[in-house]
Amino acid sequence: MFTLTQLQELISEKIKLLNFDKEPKGLYEPINYTLAAGGKRIRPIMVLAGCNLFSETVESAIPVALAFEIFHNFTLLHDDIMDNSPVRRNKKTVHVKWNSNTAILSGDAMMIEAYDLLSNLPPDLLGKTLKLFNRTALEVCEGQQYDMDFETKELVSEEDYLKMIKLKTSVLIAGALKAGAIVGGANDKDADLIYNFGLNIGLAFQIQDDLLDTYADTAVFGKKTGNDILTGKKTFLLINALQKAKPKMFEELKMLIKNKNITDDEKIHSIIKVYNILNIKEITKTKVREYHQKAIKYLENISCENKKKTELLNFASLIMQRKK
Amino acid sequence: MFTLTQLQELISEKIKLLNFDKEPKGLYEPINYTLAAGGKRIRPIMVLAGCNLFSETVESAIPVALAFEIFHNFTLLHDDIMDNSPVRRNKKTVHVKWNSNTAILSGDAMMIEAYDLLSNLPPDLLGKTLKLFNRTALEVCEGQQYDMDFETKELVSEEDYLKMIKLKTSVLIAGALKAGAIVGGANDKDADLIYNFGLNIGLAFQIQDDLLDTYADTAVFGKKTGNDILTGKKTFLLINALQKAKPKMFEELKMLIKNKNITDDEKIHSIIKVYNILNIKEITKTKVREYHQKAIKYLENISCENKKKTELLNFASLIMQRKK
Repeated sequence: MFTLTQLQELISEKIKLLNFDKEPKGLYEPINYTLAAGGKRIRPIMVLAGCNLFSETVESAIPVALAFEIFHNFTLLHDDIMDNSPVRRNKKTVHVKWNSNTAILSGDAMMIEAYDLLSNLPPDLLGKTLKLFNRTALEVCEGQQYDMDFETKELVSEEDYLKMIKLKTSVLIAGALKAGAIVGGANDKDADLIYNFGLNIGLAFQIQDDLLDTYADTAVFGKKTGNDILTGKKTFLLINALQKAKPKMFEELKMLIKNKNITDDEKIHSIIKVYNILNIKEITKTKVREYHQKAIKYLENISCENKKKTELLNFASLIMQRKK
Repeated sequence: MFTLTQLQELISEKIKLLNFDKEPKGLYEPINYTLAAGGKRIRPIMVLAGCNLFSETVESAIPVALAFEIFHNFTLLHDDIMDNSPVRRNKKTVHVKWNSNTAILSGDAMMIEAYDLLSNLPPDLLGKTLKLFNRTALEVCEGQQYDMDFETKELVSEEDYLKMIKLKTSVLIAGALKAGAIVGGANDKDADLIYNFGLNIGLAFQIQDDLLDTYADTAVFGKKTGNDILTGKKTFLLINALQKAKPKMFEELKMLIKNKNITDDEKIHSIIKVYNILNIKEITKTKVREYHQKAIKYLENISCENKKKTELLNFASLIMQRKK
């Protein structure tokens, strides 16, 4: 059995070996730049961990793990254009360092490179893995579309929000675990169980992320809290607060979000005050716990060694402390 | 054996059946809009024609044909953003009718849908077809990158130009024919021959297209000639003229291209005058003929019925009269 540290080292090493030193440089240099920028490599580790649940070797899952990582990074290139984000992992985003056209085209090439890594799977696994990958990839696009749609909506329901984060974030975690499991030889039942584990862990991640952005201990969190509040992001917290608030508080909260005549600190404190009255922190924590528990239930039903399950759960807890 | 008209009807019908009436509408409506806009469907017909050379039924090649068509249309969505093109097939381009973000994301979804169509191939064909598709797709991106690189270059060599159009246009024709041939049961030798036929026909197309834009009979051509001259596009004609011109004429031609103080008609006529002195029309026609002849040689060596080859050649001649 591999420990998660071992899987992490293995994937870092394999990513370093990826060679996009090809012509034309204008197309491939941004790919090297993106992949070298790091990140926690959560998705490829999930592929290898999913495989390791059912197989002692993870070698054959490496191309699949790399495919998920490259795909994830492709989405970042395109999302960063759409969201107009200037910085990613403390480095300039591709569309800023180069230009939007480069970020579009290099992103496209990354998606194709991801598929090319999959193409080496043995015939009996290729069709199944490809279908899962396609469905997952398409859902990620759908999630991004819903996320963009939300920007112009006055109110977003909790249900719609959960659907959006499921598509935008969770399915890729779930898909990574399931793809690994398929390569590792899991039966259909176990492959579906690990998928549902990933889906619920992914939802727990994302909601926890919303919670940390507002309520984390800055010393532990590593960056300033309150960013979501200042950008008016429709998070699990804000959506729930708007839903729970009585008419007067609802109007007060809406005014606060739009208010440009108060300092950042005043805005953060005033909105947190409303959240506290509405018990939003506890409601959010409960939701995170719910999804986490649900995930564990799915994991428990998988037919593999318990120590492997524990290792995977530890990993999940670790990244839940800070998702990005 | 299917006639090309039959294949054309078959593919039109199958494209109409593609159903992207899914949620979120913001993602899928632009896909329906794009696919409904028409076009000559050259690439999917090439897939079916490639299949039909080696098989009496083309049913199993239909998903592959649709994959090539959707992929081609995806490239148009992204290219139109990069080239800032407002109109395509007499309709507003997606990034104009909606916005750039929509054109990026719907384009991404189209690429995934293309791969999803491939995923239904039987296991013994999937890996081979997927690898060919990936290589082709990546080369198309490389071609687009070279094309963009050329915009900022003062001089482009004929060799570099041919490499660019090969990647941007020809490999997709070649890949479509070969993918169809693979599904139709061609052996490796014949699959490579049809690929090389497509590559050379594609090059002939593109150079012919450059020729028509300047020298076509407007009545037959269906639109005004001289557009490439007015936009200063680095075509086979201009590249050759700049290469062949003596220093004085070279400077004159460069001045003419940049000249903003003459009318459009004056510019077109002056540049054509230079082309005529340098014999550019004949040089270009000879190059088209060369590639066409080379293509025919490859086709002749394929082991299939002659009447099928004739049908394919007729199709090639037909679309060479007007590529787009």
